[in-house]
Amino acid sequence: MGTARISKNTRAGLMMAINTLPSSPTELRNLIRNDGYNTITAGLAPGYVQTNLVILPRDLAFDFLLFCQRNPKPCPLIEVIESGNIEPKLTAPGADIRTDLPKYRVYRDGVLDKEVENVLEVWRDDLVSFLLGCSFTFESALMSSGIEMRHIENATNVSMYITNKETIPAGKFSGPTVVSMRPIKQEKVVKAVQVTSRFPNTHGAPLHIGNPASLGIKDIEQPDYGDIVPVKDGEVPVFWACGVTPQAVAAQSKPPFMITHSPGHMFITDIRDEDLALL
Amino acid sequence: MGTARISKNTRAGLMMAINTLPSSPTELRNLIRNDGYNTITAGLAPGYVQTNLVILPRDLAFDFLLFCQRNPKPCPLIEVIESGNIEPKLTAPGADIRTDLPKYRVYRDGVLDKEVENVLEVWRDDLVSFLLGCSFTFESALMSSGIEMRHIENATNVSMYITNKETIPAGKFSGPTVVSMRPIKQEKVVKAVQVTSRFPNTHGAPLHIGNPASLGIKDIEQPDYGDIVPVKDGEVPVFWACGVTPQAVAAQSKPPFMITHSPGHMFITDIRDEDLALL
Repeated sequence: MGTARISKNTRAGLMMAINTLPSSPTELRNLIRNDGYNTITAGLAPGYVQTNLVILPRDLAFDFLLFCQRNPKPCPLIEVIESGNIEPKLTAPGADIRTDLPKYRVYRDGVLDKEVENVLEVWRDDLVSFLLGCSFTFESALMSSGIEMRHIENATNVSMYITNKETIPAGKFSGPTVVSMRPIKQEKVVKAVQVTSRFPNTHGAPLHIGNPASLGIKDIEQPDYGDIVPVKDGEVPVFWACGVTPQAVAAQSKPPFMITHSPGHMFITDIRDEDLALL
Repeated sequence: MGTARISKNTRAGLMMAINTLPSSPTELRNLIRNDGYNTITAGLAPGYVQTNLVILPRDLAFDFLLFCQRNPKPCPLIEVIESGNIEPKLTAPGADIRTDLPKYRVYRDGVLDKEVENVLEVWRDDLVSFLLGCSFTFESALMSSGIEMRHIENATNVSMYITNKETIPAGKFSGPTVVSMRPIKQEKVVKAVQVTSRFPNTHGAPLHIGNPASLGIKDIEQPDYGDIVPVKDGEVPVFWACGVTPQAVAAQSKPPFMITHSPGHMFITDIRDEDLALL
């Protein structure tokens, strides 16, 4: 790969960099695998589904799979790679889940141990990999419908909040639902519901419209994760289930060993956003 | 329970009988539990979701759960009851999965051992119960939209066929997709797609419209399961993924022990068909 190693973290730098990158998922994964790209994947391979990643030992896999089945809004499963395998055969044939994300986090007993660019050294044959839908897909659909995304304009992360809505537990896994918030103009709220309802596998329709207190959020300007995203006059805060939920729930159960993607450093699949659209 | 034991099998008898039965799911399950009703559940508790049932030992549960995740059209999961539990807490609180279906089938090494009215005597603490969506929900929606169901008019079962479309395997589970066929008037086909698309958790949109050969079906008048349902002039055969698939696939893997519902003798939940509707 002749492409220079790209690790700038500012959006301007990224946007320039993205223009020099390949746009096919396979080429991008190869670049990442060969250490040619190690920063966030927002904006890469437009139109293709990117996913969250949670990797757990097999003895926790049934409980976690069941947790996802019971909580499909925060935990929309795109693919599960069984133990002994490293290839997402259904959504990215030829990929290697151990090397093809730009950055991983390794947890031991629920505590972050290290951040690494591949997990070859810590890989074990008993690991099961869960690929979960991410909000990039529905944000892209919202923007295509003319709905502005304030956090993208501001080059910040979305605001995320721990709510008073408990997930449905499964085995060792339980905890509150985490939501992301996007300010939507009043006259676009119906459209925002319609557009995201088409994508149940990437968090789907909003969980709530309008009243942060009803989710137990005391101060909308104090998010639990991410950045402050101001809600302006004439706008309504709209809340979607968030992919941070499965990671937070998994970490809270303190599994002896767990790997996740680093925030924003997602896995790029070969399937298109529209492949996940319901209608 | 003062209600006389009902075991008539003819539709006319059933229809008369249904009018004397309670219409609430809880009362019906109590009647069934107390041996007051032991025949098919079609037409009972209108508007409430009825489910297929597959019960497997825990060491096969991860593979089967993953099989359902990978094949949501034939295997739409409504609820999973973990080992050590007998109550479908999410969809029928207070119910007992061992007694509340009118008839069960017990398999050993993939072979039908016996048909029983409860499974109390064979119950084990390592069993995991899978409740899967059934076509009653979308048939009810189709009929509400003015689309006639020939097999119901004829008081027969639908025609079901083993197709050349392989399911996506998971662990020990693999096999062909089974479809059910309903003849739909040409001018109603679009409506039939729209109506059933709203119910992804009960098999959802059709798998195919019009050409049996494209599914590997040689003779539409020779179904693999169920009865012959004639397709008349001006009608199109429309094929939906069928809940027989998970049972057929589970049986084919020859699990040492398995329990299913008897065909047509479903589990009646407390959730409403419309609770499963997507939009």
